[in-house]
Amino acid sequence: MKIDLPKKSDINEWYNQIVEVSGLCDKRYPIQGFNVWTPYGLRVMRNIDGFTREEMEKTGHQEVSFPLLIPESLFAKEAEHIKGFGGEVYWVTHAGEKELDEKLLLRPTSETAMYPMFSLWIRSHADLPLKTFQIVDVFRYETKQTRAFIRIRQIHFFEAHTCHADFEDAEKQIREDIEIAKRIFRKLALPCLINKRPDWDKFAGAHYSIGFDALMPSGRTLQLGSVHQYKTNFSEPYNIKYEAPDGSHKYVHQTTYGMSERLLGAIVLMHGDDSGLILPPEVAPIQIVIVPIIFKGKEKEVMDACQKILKSLKSRFRVHLDDREITPGSKYYDWELKGVPLRIEVGPKDVEKDEMIIVRRDEGKRKSVQIGDINSVSSELQAVDESLYKKAEDVLNNGVRDFKNIDEARIDSGFSGVIRMPWCGSESCGHQAEELLDMSTLGSPIDGGNEAGIEERCAICGGTAKEIIVMARTY
Amino acid sequence: MKIDLPKKSDINEWYNQIVEVSGLCDKRYPIQGFNVWTPYGLRVMRNIDGFTREEMEKTGHQEVSFPLLIPESLFAKEAEHIKGFGGEVYWVTHAGEKELDEKLLLRPTSETAMYPMFSLWIRSHADLPLKTFQIVDVFRYETKQTRAFIRIRQIHFFEAHTCHADFEDAEKQIREDIEIAKRIFRKLALPCLINKRPDWDKFAGAHYSIGFDALMPSGRTLQLGSVHQYKTNFSEPYNIKYEAPDGSHKYVHQTTYGMSERLLGAIVLMHGDDSGLILPPEVAPIQIVIVPIIFKGKEKEVMDACQKILKSLKSRFRVHLDDREITPGSKYYDWELKGVPLRIEVGPKDVEKDEMIIVRRDEGKRKSVQIGDINSVSSELQAVDESLYKKAEDVLNNGVRDFKNIDEARIDSGFSGVIRMPWCGSESCGHQAEELLDMSTLGSPIDGGNEAGIEERCAICGGTAKEIIVMARTY
Repeated sequence: MKIDLPKKSDINEWYNQIVEVSGLCDKRYPIQGFNVWTPYGLRVMRNIDGFTREEMEKTGHQEVSFPLLIPESLFAKEAEHIKGFGGEVYWVTHAGEKELDEKLLLRPTSETAMYPMFSLWIRSHADLPLKTFQIVDVFRYETKQTRAFIRIRQIHFFEAHTCHADFEDAEKQIREDIEIAKRIFRKLALPCLINKRPDWDKFAGAHYSIGFDALMPSGRTLQLGSVHQYKTNFSEPYNIKYEAPDGSHKYVHQTTYGMSERLLGAIVLMHGDDSGLILPPEVAPIQIVIVPIIFKGKEKEVMDACQKILKSLKSRFRVHLDDREITPGSKYYDWELKGVPLRIEVGPKDVEKDEMIIVRRDEGKRKSVQIGDINSVSSELQAVDESLYKKAEDVLNNGVRDFKNIDEARIDSGFSGVIRMPWCGSESCGHQAEELLDMSTLGSPIDGGNEAGIEERCAICGGTAKEIIVMARTY
Repeated sequence: MKIDLPKKSDINEWYNQIVEVSGLCDKRYPIQGFNVWTPYGLRVMRNIDGFTREEMEKTGHQEVSFPLLIPESLFAKEAEHIKGFGGEVYWVTHAGEKELDEKLLLRPTSETAMYPMFSLWIRSHADLPLKTFQIVDVFRYETKQTRAFIRIRQIHFFEAHTCHADFEDAEKQIREDIEIAKRIFRKLALPCLINKRPDWDKFAGAHYSIGFDALMPSGRTLQLGSVHQYKTNFSEPYNIKYEAPDGSHKYVHQTTYGMSERLLGAIVLMHGDDSGLILPPEVAPIQIVIVPIIFKGKEKEVMDACQKILKSLKSRFRVHLDDREITPGSKYYDWELKGVPLRIEVGPKDVEKDEMIIVRRDEGKRKSVQIGDINSVSSELQAVDESLYKKAEDVLNNGVRDFKNIDEARIDSGFSGVIRMPWCGSESCGHQAEELLDMSTLGSPIDGGNEAGIEERCAICGGTAKEIIVMARTY
């Protein structure tokens, strides 16, 4: 298969093609929104999961795995939550020939599976904080158009769930989560905005929600993950209490932190080009591919040199020697499509000079270095990473515009990106802006930017501005 | 929680208690047969999965991940398969408020999800062999009594699926699978019998099935895994064909190889004792625990020595320093329960002599060695592994008896283990023996043992014996 569309001409169609031709997934499974993870895609996802596990371990979270199925009665305990998810759950009603006494649902997220157990696990303040996470599949019956990794019905999902003695300790957790997320997104070369979602778009059951929004080259934002403060909204209906040092019994304060295979979708959308994927070195299953340029009579010298290079690199990098009997050009094509960050070419003339050529996937730059010069390989890999991050930062920096009032924003209707305006904070102004601009509200920036608006007037109603409203078209 | 039963008095009840008190799982989830993986159990299972992935990579299998849900029409394509599994599948009939056009089932195993895709993936002989595997959860509505890890309804599952040009290449795969299985089971210190299952007990849809049967101290066997030759039984209904070099189109020959969380159940049943789990060093999340024996005034010296030991060991072993403020005795109790293979004790007197005491979990033997003597630590760990394997071999060797005729076997009714008898090979004799002995047929040994019976008479009907029948009570 080939990609037959430049990225710029139709990024969404380009995306739909690239995810399959590069070997990330197969969308031909006969249930809509249920895709097959093919080996290459699964390896990328496992690397991403690896970063997550590493961060979870460093921050004292323990991995658990809860059942997929949830009894209807448990699910229904928190009213907002069932309102938010009830319309999109898959229901198991029968087992074998038998109709079940109680309907079971496939988890759309795991609060209602976990919290009855947390209520058994937590007894005293000594059990707190409880910091857990799991990496499992969740299921949501999306009614909108599906898109690989970004909007699907079986979702590879990460969810951290924590319980704390009080609100402030839960807030501390949220600050930790934000730092964790930043470190993970840096490895994926994905800078993002961090916004506190407006009340009308918070997670079902949350006290407040924070979203990580990356701006894609299409001008739309993609939510990379989210963190939620639940306060005691779930611990009350699920009865998760602890005995405080003074003997009193209190409800725990809870937080969650979620991410999904969307991260992989974001990498594809952000970094890919007309030749295929470009994978940041940290997530690439193959970081370096070695391609021998064979001419008759010089096969042995070239292959020996390639083997030597392979040997010198493989303890430090994920490296692959492509010894297939096809032309070097075909190999370039394949590995460019798969986004391998560095290619090393070795021909007879290079061998004579004891050299190899390093080619960067992102910029196509070629560089001759001594065979065995591992430091150059390492710094070229790092250069790919930094350049990808820099480009993504440019997309973000060039894609955010500030407006003083909504008319200015409407006039600039050719603009596709993130819009920021001073805001009185009212829901009605938010909805009005959404309608006038045909955008969604991402919320208000959590890390600065609010103060700037305080002296100004709300861009919509002209009342006193209290914060910045951040808006965009979203995936 | 404490265990209040010696293993010998009631091994099944002992098992039911130990899996929870040692922290492997929590069985209080409110759907029968659906347990929660608690952190410690999940870590053990991940180590086992790690061995499997390592073996799969070494043998050129690629990891994939297929959707959980299967449309009813796909599932129904192979008649024997649906007969075998149809009675125990969970059915998804609704999504949100909507009744689905076609019912979907939760995979009980993935043939019917994978093979329609294999039919798209395989075009020519150059695509063969196709060697894939996945580690996912499968769902079976067990009607028998459930038991943690051994008989549950949501099952952590490994399944390898391969496609081959011809029967002989598929047979070669089965021989490879057997070697893989032996290497994995050795790491778990689980010797086993390898039996070709009788026709009436083969996998639904298989041409033949091979089972790996470990004999537990209870006298019952537990199937650790199985390998199946499908021939073209699935490739025909699912239309998986390839173009041969001569231009003809042929159906592929297929095999599968399955294992599950039962492996963890087998480790618990086989190696545990009255004090708790005993984990083979290869699977133990913590291989060595360091316990400081603190006396007033000597805290610093002891803790410094422990830190030094920790530092010297942690690059080679999974080691944990237990610095909780509880008595050493309580720590011994906890870590014995969790089956940590080696404990290192360090008290003030040891520090004076620059020594530490190594205590083996399996035999309780104590040994003083120099602090920093990593080789002794390593050889003690190996000794635990070898001793566990040896004990399990003894259970197996002492638990298999040969009988010439079924009456002898019936008279020896106090015997609880594996029975082997010469057999004419007929299904009727098999069923008769099952009834008379109240046992199941495991099949015939694949690795020798058959020849012995050929000269003799069938133990049941007295006809000419063709093979050995192996029988046992099973989990």
